[in-house]
Amino acid sequence: MTDPVRIVERIAWRGGRLAPGERAIPEEAAIAFTYNGSSYAVMMATPQDLEDFAVGFSITEGIVASPHAIEQLEVIEQDIGIELRMRLTEPHASAFHERRRYLAGPTGCGLCGIESLDEAMRAPASIADNVMFAPQDIMRALAALESQQVLNAQTRAVHGAAFYTPSQGLVAVREDVGRHNALDKLAGALVRRGVSGAEGFAVVTSRLSVEMIQKAAALGIPMLVAVSAPTALAARTAQAAGMTLVAVARHDGFEIFTHPQRIKEERTLHVVAG
Amino acid sequence: MTDPVRIVERIAWRGGRLAPGERAIPEEAAIAFTYNGSSYAVMMATPQDLEDFAVGFSITEGIVASPHAIEQLEVIEQDIGIELRMRLTEPHASAFHERRRYLAGPTGCGLCGIESLDEAMRAPASIADNVMFAPQDIMRALAALESQQVLNAQTRAVHGAAFYTPSQGLVAVREDVGRHNALDKLAGALVRRGVSGAEGFAVVTSRLSVEMIQKAAALGIPMLVAVSAPTALAARTAQAAGMTLVAVARHDGFEIFTHPQRIKEERTLHVVAG
Repeated sequence: MTDPVRIVERIAWRGGRLAPGERAIPEEAAIAFTYNGSSYAVMMATPQDLEDFAVGFSITEGIVASPHAIEQLEVIEQDIGIELRMRLTEPHASAFHERRRYLAGPTGCGLCGIESLDEAMRAPASIADNVMFAPQDIMRALAALESQQVLNAQTRAVHGAAFYTPSQGLVAVREDVGRHNALDKLAGALVRRGVSGAEGFAVVTSRLSVEMIQKAAALGIPMLVAVSAPTALAARTAQAAGMTLVAVARHDGFEIFTHPQRIKEERTLHVVAG
Repeated sequence: MTDPVRIVERIAWRGGRLAPGERAIPEEAAIAFTYNGSSYAVMMATPQDLEDFAVGFSITEGIVASPHAIEQLEVIEQDIGIELRMRLTEPHASAFHERRRYLAGPTGCGLCGIESLDEAMRAPASIADNVMFAPQDIMRALAALESQQVLNAQTRAVHGAAFYTPSQGLVAVREDVGRHNALDKLAGALVRRGVSGAEGFAVVTSRLSVEMIQKAAALGIPMLVAVSAPTALAARTAQAAGMTLVAVARHDGFEIFTHPQRIKEERTLHVVAG
């Protein structure tokens, strides 16, 4: 398998002087998703955790509703990239071909299969409202994610996505040069382990655009926490989906943009529980 | 036109206390590209400088080679997004429909029109080698870009892309929530003004993935400077295209990953010129 980190030679210019040296930078590879012999999309991504990527992408993009619809998955290295070759069971295979015929055109960033405004703006799945989190959960999740970003520790140039539950702490962490890919890999890691998105919340090191909300909603994740800011469209979409959106989450605190009712101080929770 | 920045209410949690307040966040809108009545792609982008986006995307994605092939461009606001409706002249319209029939499937991030590994990894155009830059040009371009990022000053959440020439300084700056979009808008601003990419270099505030190299190469830009790091694939692609890749460019210096021969100290240049 391709190494996800490369050490390359570069010349640094600092203090008016040129000096040779090395830097660790993330690898990036063209990853092709194919289903029952038909190619669907190529994403540029970090070549790591590709089985998770295959399953997660297939679910967050709505190609399958469950990992059981993928009866075979092969990761095939080619000269110019990597193919994630999947075979879908029926009736999912027929549904895929039907959808593919309908979408007779290419599409844009993070919106695979979308070429019309109607489909881009699909309403996200609605989120269950029976789970609460404490501010301290968010701070713990942030700290735990930071300590487990292996590729980012080497390169300072990849995004991380993690899933946290109050009872288990950090359940999974995935990394990628693309923020959508990191979230898709996390999605795959969760569904392959049978972890329900409704049990906890996701933390991402990036900004939040609308596709991140749509992907998290496809997993039923009730709260999304981001280190950077959301777009206004992401906030409106989270509001409509019933998802709690927390952003600008740093060591000193965070900001709640939608559905703050899921966040309660631990002390209050204890009093209520007592 | 939709405002590119929104002021939203949010609740901040800091120092153990919840406090209501406001934050400026970037707008994001679904932008559909249509050519002669056929939809091509939907990108999520900042709704600003959309004529530049239309022309730049069409060129960096290889749909047209010149803005003159676009005989009409309308920006049409719809309820759920914005359509960039373009009419191509012949033979470009026929070539577009031909290509579109060939690409009977959707695609991935920044790689519109790509569903196969072969097409994703297309060789970039080769770059002319007759222009030199001084380290001080890079530092001046970075400082100038920082001072002109209007949306980012308000939101701290959008990317910037700028074009700089040693004789004219900063020629154009464009901003977007997506780094590929910022570069496409810059491309459109340049070609609409008749500025040749070969005259200067581009500076982007983001990381450099391979698509950024491909887009810059499509404009003949000989050097790309990034605030963050490149991917290894981006570096290999720049090497093959003959493009100088400068990254990790900060106030204290920068690092040269490919083709350092274009960078010479100003003092040396003056001696040679005299």
